[in-house]
Amino acid sequence: SPDHCHSSNDRQKPSASMSSKPIKLTYFDIPGRGEPLRLAMWIGDMKFEDERIEFKDWPALKPKTCWGSLPMLTLPSGEEFAQTRTLGRFVGKKTGLYPEDPVAAMRVDEILDTVEDLQSATNSAGQGLEKKEKEKKRKEAMESGKPAKILKKLDCYSKKHGKPGYMVGDKITLADLFVFSYTGFVISSGFFDGVPTDALNDYPSLLAVRKTVDSHPAVS
Amino acid sequence: SPDHCHSSNDRQKPSASMSSKPIKLTYFDIPGRGEPLRLAMWIGDMKFEDERIEFKDWPALKPKTCWGSLPMLTLPSGEEFAQTRTLGRFVGKKTGLYPEDPVAAMRVDEILDTVEDLQSATNSAGQGLEKKEKEKKRKEAMESGKPAKILKKLDCYSKKHGKPGYMVGDKITLADLFVFSYTGFVISSGFFDGVPTDALNDYPSLLAVRKTVDSHPAVS
Repeated sequence: SPDHCHSSNDRQKPSASMSSKPIKLTYFDIPGRGEPLRLAMWIGDMKFEDERIEFKDWPALKPKTCWGSLPMLTLPSGEEFAQTRTLGRFVGKKTGLYPEDPVAAMRVDEILDTVEDLQSATNSAGQGLEKKEKEKKRKEAMESGKPAKILKKLDCYSKKHGKPGYMVGDKITLADLFVFSYTGFVISSGFFDGVPTDALNDYPSLLAVRKTVDSHPAVS
Repeated sequence: SPDHCHSSNDRQKPSASMSSKPIKLTYFDIPGRGEPLRLAMWIGDMKFEDERIEFKDWPALKPKTCWGSLPMLTLPSGEEFAQTRTLGRFVGKKTGLYPEDPVAAMRVDEILDTVEDLQSATNSAGQGLEKKEKEKKRKEAMESGKPAKILKKLDCYSKKHGKPGYMVGDKITLADLFVFSYTGFVISSGFFDGVPTDALNDYPSLLAVRKTVDSHPAVS
């Protein structure tokens, strides 16, 4: 029978001193999908190795990783884990940024999945079109398409389920960090051609959440 | 300042008898994204109202829901929640199908996100092409493209991190239910034109996981 498996941990063997090693986060030297994880560990005061890979080095490293994707979290044991929200939830549990109450946790999870939808809906808008036409479609999408609908829902959600400045409840959670990072990436990073940089101005509750994160002492 | 919010709970007001009401799962009368949630509640012996909506009734219902998407979970309080994996995790916590240990939980989460990637990679293959050409691309993708790579990784993962018949550890978890439902949906449902119905035959560990779920007394 076929065996597709190869050792994924060749890159880093557990060693005698492993218990003293911190968790390692591996990502590129950009905010992107690494940012909400770094924010959680900075805000949660969790010691970690902040490994930043150059884009040019990734093709050689990729086949040596378990999942072939970044961000990646490596435990002191050498075990590797992937998937942004999966890692976020683990870090959130360790830092108190992910609620223990299952209903509150479900609220946070809902937001994590929804900001991912925001990014993929923005990315899809105008896909395959020439630059000018794509930028036009993207702009329209941000004004009245699926991304706009998602932003409205998130804004509303914050009003309903969070105190001002928070997505859920009355203190900072993973949900705020993901909203901060994903709205920043989608709207003001310049990565998505055609998205107006003022696209968040109609969503005051989301702006308040951004401010909560941005003005946290561990961040600013 | 703009207010995008409207009441999302008009459809079901909390009532005096709410504490005796079970949780309600609302989805279409197909397996799809509802299946892993139903499986978790059947296997975990959790009482729930299995509300099945006809496709023709959805357009009228959609604007009355909080998120405009199914599956949807309604708590006895009337609060509505969406996002398949979010709901799965909540149900998994209630039924013991989601590990309490954060590392084991991270393993389960990794699988949940990866089967979602499997579905979107399969869906993307050949997108926008005519039927025949699309079917050809899909078949190729399942043999050597991104979906094939993901299936190989999942098969390997089960060998490494689970006892035979399990994705993670030595008992059934949410990860097994999601692998069962998503591989079933992607490969044998006929929903994705061009995917060979024997596409799982090269992955014996995944077939073993499927068998574990399919032969569970609460399922078969």
